[in-house]
This record gives sequence, structure tokens and C-alpha cells, in this order.
Amino acid sequence: MTLDAQIMEIAKNARAAAFQMATCDTSKKNETLLKIASKLEREKEILKAENGKDLLYAREKGLSEAMIDRLALKEATLLSMIEGLQYVATLPDPVGEITRTWSRPNGLQVSRMRIPLGVICMIYESRPNVTIDAAGLCLKSGNSVILRGGSESFHSNQALSRIISESLLEAGLPPHAAQIVPVRDREAVTILLQQEEWIDLIIPRGGESLIRFVVNHSKIPVLKHYKGVCHVYVDEGADIQMAIDISMNAKVQRPGVCNAMETLLVHRAVATQFLPRAAIQLQNAGVELRGCEKTAAILPGVKQAVEQDWREEYLDLILAVKVVESMDEAIAHMAKYGSNHTESIVTSDYERARRFLRQVDSSVVLVNASTRFNDGGQLGLGAEIGISTSKLHAFGPMGLDELTTTKFVVMGDGQVRS
Amino acid sequence: MTLDAQIMEIAKNARAAAFQMATCDTSKKNETLLKIASKLEREKEILKAENGKDLLYAREKGLSEAMIDRLALKEATLLSMIEGLQYVATLPDPVGEITRTWSRPNGLQVSRMRIPLGVICMIYESRPNVTIDAAGLCLKSGNSVILRGGSESFHSNQALSRIISESLLEAGLPPHAAQIVPVRDREAVTILLQQEEWIDLIIPRGGESLIRFVVNHSKIPVLKHYKGVCHVYVDEGADIQMAIDISMNAKVQRPGVCNAMETLLVHRAVATQFLPRAAIQLQNAGVELRGCEKTAAILPGVKQAVEQDWREEYLDLILAVKVVESMDEAIAHMAKYGSNHTESIVTSDYERARRFLRQVDSSVVLVNASTRFNDGGQLGLGAEIGISTSKLHAFGPMGLDELTTTKFVVMGDGQVRS
Repeated sequence: MTLDAQIMEIAKNARAAAFQMATCDTSKKNETLLKIASKLEREKEILKAENGKDLLYAREKGLSEAMIDRLALKEATLLSMIEGLQYVATLPDPVGEITRTWSRPNGLQVSRMRIPLGVICMIYESRPNVTIDAAGLCLKSGNSVILRGGSESFHSNQALSRIISESLLEAGLPPHAAQIVPVRDREAVTILLQQEEWIDLIIPRGGESLIRFVVNHSKIPVLKHYKGVCHVYVDEGADIQMAIDISMNAKVQRPGVCNAMETLLVHRAVATQFLPRAAIQLQNAGVELRGCEKTAAILPGVKQAVEQDWREEYLDLILAVKVVESMDEAIAHMAKYGSNHTESIVTSDYERARRFLRQVDSSVVLVNASTRFNDGGQLGLGAEIGISTSKLHAFGPMGLDELTTTKFVVMGDGQVRS
Repeated sequence: MTLDAQIMEIAKNARAAAFQMATCDTSKKNETLLKIASKLEREKEILKAENGKDLLYAREKGLSEAMIDRLALKEATLLSMIEGLQYVATLPDPVGEITRTWSRPNGLQVSRMRIPLGVICMIYESRPNVTIDAAGLCLKSGNSVILRGGSESFHSNQALSRIISESLLEAGLPPHAAQIVPVRDREAVTILLQQEEWIDLIIPRGGESLIRFVVNHSKIPVLKHYKGVCHVYVDEGADIQMAIDISMNAKVQRPGVCNAMETLLVHRAVATQFLPRAAIQLQNAGVELRGCEKTAAILPGVKQAVEQDWREEYLDLILAVKVVESMDEAIAHMAKYGSNHTESIVTSDYERARRFLRQVDSSVVLVNASTRFNDGGQLGLGAEIGISTSKLHAFGPMGLDELTTTKFVVMGDGQVRS
């Protein structure tokens, strides 16, 4: 069979399974998730052995230690996969939920009912835990899922996929509801992205180059974010200690993730009070500061920021710092250099808090809280399959609801249109 | 200026205007709509003169009478444009609406706030009323809009566009919030579809070939439906009179629209009772029937349906008729040949009504009501900018809410992540 034919068969089988998944009982979906969890527990050693083949391959290929670390199925990774599935099984089933009901003057009762999207295709890099996390969320929301992990995690993903298929079958659900693409060739991705007839949504997860590749080649809608250039703005009259705590948390707690702060904007009126104290703490935590001229005047010896720094997603212990004359300048800076991801204001002023929430055009906008809260779990969505920074369909963290849409259901007693 | 540069300037100006529109007061948006309405009233004669140039051009080009009819700015068309704007001005402003609020254990208050999508581009055919209807809905929902009408309505659209820009300016809003593309060249459409940096959404309205062209060339998300192959299924034990009334309404009341019935499915148990009575009424109304073999056995002399009939969107007084053995067969038929647009069941059975609503995968699913109700106005959305039969972002009729998305707004008092 050619690669084209093979991919098309996977996609068609996913579509057929999606029909069954769309209307199956919640209990069967939860049973599947719990079966996967217990098999992961029971087959740990098998999984580690398969993962070992991938690690060997990765070392032979000369992958970086950071990548090998993400590839490894460690005890803690397996445990979080198992607990994740068990947790998603406890979440309410979004499918069939009536989100609104109203009546028309002619007596028609109109409702909007949540339904699955259909077939979702995940394209991701080396982390094999995405295979389990994504399958859990897609199945719980009544979708079929096609999983295309990185070629480095080939053996791990094959083993995980077998466990998922067995669990679906044992719970009486179609095993094609979750399929892994069993080909290393990257051409498989290009072919997947053409299957608009069978696949409803592509979700890429990984570095910016993977995501740009997917967007440029896909005929199917893509939910994605390229990067997170997140800002904290310390307003005139802000509580200085709170501003320091939030800045520290947003930059230092986990610098390598998309919701970490990359640029700190400080109102001129608090700059001399705030910046020296903040700088000491940040520098003690190993953060390199890159400041505008006004920052340098307050923090002598600080490295000079260049234009590119305002656009940079460092994902590292580096922070760009700019002193602004007003909140309007701060908002304009975010609009020009930001990524519509996450922005926070630290303020004591009611009117400016309100105006910031309205005017800042980002998926999550916060007052007096760390940017690190842009996360489905932290915001109470239960779980997260990714974050969208484009506005169509979903904007911000995506949980189970964002893997569904609504249809109109209309109950009448013979109404016709006049 | 090259065509590329001209289109790019329109798109960039739209984006700049979108920033202002996103946070402007409701009263200014309503004022704009009412100003457009009163100018349409005041400048009727000018508009008719400009429209006259288009009609002359259309006749010279040898366009069909049906197309010329749709192009004409008649008194009734103008009146409905004016009333449409006045009505949309009375609708609640979706922007800023908090659709949900909840609290987290750490005290964060999380809300979802409606915001505009940004820049919407409408690509449509000859009807100049779309220029006004679409501008009204896009502006009310806080978006910028780029309007690209058919080349036949060039002069009409230029005149309407001038009225819209003047009204925006007088209300203190950016005139670039609604721009018409002042070029006849179809190449302009192709260039528009590449402006992913400045345009957020494309909505094509017109025939299937226009829509396919847009989908195949767009780098920007497209909300569309290709066609409506809508079904009525008359169940075992249905109220025969109700089934006849609904079938007649769905087929005959306005056969040329996307929510008209194209295929009638009849349960075998009611076929001999229902079909002869229904056939008389339908045929008296001028409907040509094309039946399956079982239909032909009940209605001797009826024309034989071929495979292609089940897929056909006639948009005319023609109806395909099929006798089925069960509701499952009816649902399977809809899944195979339908277009996920609108399907209705006529039934007296509680369990089957409920199952039909759950299992049928269409944007609007009805019990005991005509398919003609798939319409934003009829279903109570206030107004409609189109119908989507794909599931991403919106499924079914799209009103003001569907021209928005939500962002997360989070209010804290110093929370950081541990």
C-alpha cells in the first residue's frame, strides 16, 4: 500500500469511528480512560523497554540532553499520565449538554446542544505523554483522534497506541477512535494535512517551526499558537511588593513555558521605587535584564535592550524591561510587540484595571495575578489540550468544551413558515 | 499603485480601524447604523441612478433575468435594507458581554468576555443589499469589514460604500471600519485571500463555485456552506396531516433557498397512507417527484430517481422521495447523501424524537417543524450573516454572537503560581 493510501485509510477509519463516538454513553468513554490508566500501570516495564529503543535511537542520532529528557518515560511521567486519565474520567461529559434554550413566539423551542467536532489530528514532537493526554481528552469529548508524534518516539507511541486500542475494544468502542500514524516518514504529515474530507481539526504542539509548517501546508483548520511574548505592566500606584512577587513568579517559576513573562513594562512614576528592588531579586534568581534607556538610568550597568528584544520569546532567564510614560504606551507596546497570549497589570486603580481588561487584546488578561495562570487546569477548565492565540473557534486555553461545537435542536408541534 | 499594494493598504487600514471598533461605545455603533439607514432613505434616487448603470452593464453582458432581478435596487429591497439596519441597532451589543464567571480555590475570579473577531472579509455575488446587511452586522459586533461584491454591482456598491463611510465619520468612528474593494478585477479576491496578517475571517456568500474558489485559495479561515440537501423524514405513526403540511412548506414555500427540502424519506409503515395524499398536494403545487422503486409501487407513473438525485440540491420544484424500512435507514441515508445543513423528523414517538435529535449530525435538527426554520431570524438570533455547515467556530445560522469570540479576564489580588 502506498503512503497516501495508508494515511487515507487511517483518516477514513477515524471518520467512521467518529460516528459511533459521537453518540456513545459517557460510561463507556470513562471506562476506556480508566482501562488505559490501569494498563499503563500494569505494563510499565513493557513501555519502558519500548521507550528504551527510542532513547537509544535518540542518542545515536545525537539529540540534545533536553530532548532526550522530554522523550524519556520516567516513573513520574507515567504516573502523571495515569492520574491525568483518571482525572479526565471524573470531569462532566460535554457532549449532549444543552448550553441554552429559548422559545419562539410560534411555540418552537430552540436549544443549542454540544456535539463533538468529529476527527481531530494531533501533530506533536518528542513527548510521548502527549499521546495519552490528547487521546484522553479527545475520546472523553466524543471525538476520534489521529496521533502523529515525533519520529523519535516511534516505539513508545506504538506501544501506547496498542494499549489505547485494546482499551477501546474492551469497553465496546471502535478501536479506530484513536489511531497512531505508524510511519516515521515526515511526508505522512503533509498527506494528513490534505485529508479535509475526513479530518475536522489539526492541533499542532511543538516549536514554532513545526507549527508554521503545519499552518502553511494544511487544508484543514488549525488551532495553534506560535509563541507567547507575555507582559507584566506595573502601573502607577501599584503595590510594590505585589508587583515584585508577580514579576518574580511570572519570570522565574518556570521560565521555559509559553506563559512566562518575557517583557516587564513599568510606569515612570513607580520605576525608581520598583525597579531597584525588583532587579535585585530577579538577578539573585539568575535573571539577565535587558533594559531601555530609562531603565538603564535607574539600574546602572544593565544590558541595553535592542529592538529585537521586545519581540523575543526567550523561554529562559532573560527579561526585557521598559519604562513607559503611561498605561496607553504600555498597551500600545503590547499590541505592537506582543503575541495576543497573556498580559497582566499590577494596579490599585479601579478605572485602569477595568480599562486594561477591556482594551488588551490577548487570550488571557489578568489584574494583579501572575501570567503563569494562563493554563486550562489553573483557570478551572479541568484539563487542557493546548492554547489558541488566534480567535476563530477558541481563544486561550482549550479544554473539553473547546473540542466540541453546538448544533441547534428545535422542537415543534407542526410549525411551518409563513 | 499596484493591485497588490492597493489591497494590502485596504487590509491594513481595516486592521487599524478594528482596534478602535473593538472598544468603542455601543451608542456610536448604533448611531452609525441609523445614519446609514436615514441616508439610504434620503439618497434613494442617487442610489437608483448608480444601480441603473449596473443594470445597463448587466444587460449588455447578457446576464440572466434572475441575476438582473437580484441586482436591482428596488423600492422593497431598499426598504428592507433600511429596516434591517434599524432592527440591528435595537439588538443588544455582544461586545463586552460576560458569558460566564467562576471562582478558583485561590480566590482568582475568572470570566469569559465577548470580543470582536477583528477584520472580516465578505465575498459575495450580485446582490447589493448584502453590502448593507453585512456592514450592519459586522459594525454592530465591533468588527471591521472589507466588502467585495460582484463586479456587476460595482456602481451600486461604490455608492453604498460612500454612505457607510460618511456615517462612520459623522458618528466619530473610523471610516476604514467598512471598506469596499473598488476594483472589478477578480484577481483582487485572490490577493485578499492571502492577507492572513490583517484579515481574521472570510465569509463567502454565493453559488457553490464561488465558495469552492474561496476555500481553495484562502490562507485565512473561511466560514461557509456549500449547499443544503435538506431532508424531511416521516416516521412510522406520524400525524399524516402534519407530515403533509410540513412537507409542503419545506418544499414549496420558497424552493430556491438552501433550507428548502430536497429529499423526502418515508417510513414503509406510513408510506401507503401518506404518499398518495402528499403527492397530490405536491404535484398540484407544481412539484416534480422522483421516487425510489418502493415509491413507484405506491405512486404509479412517478419518475424513477437515480443515484445522483439523492445528492442533488435542486433549488427548484423537484423532490426526491425514498421509502425506508426504519429510522436507522433514514439517518444513514442523511449521513451518506446529506450536507449537514437541516433535517426534520415528523413523529409522535418520544424515544425516536429524542434519538433523532441526538444522532443526526446537522447544524439544525428539528422535530415536527419545517426545515425552512433554519434561519437566524426565525430561530431568534436577531439577524443572520450566513449559515455554517462546518463545525469549527460556528455550526448553523450565524448572528452577532458568531461574529465574536471570548477572551479570559482574570481578577486577582496578588496571586502567584506555586
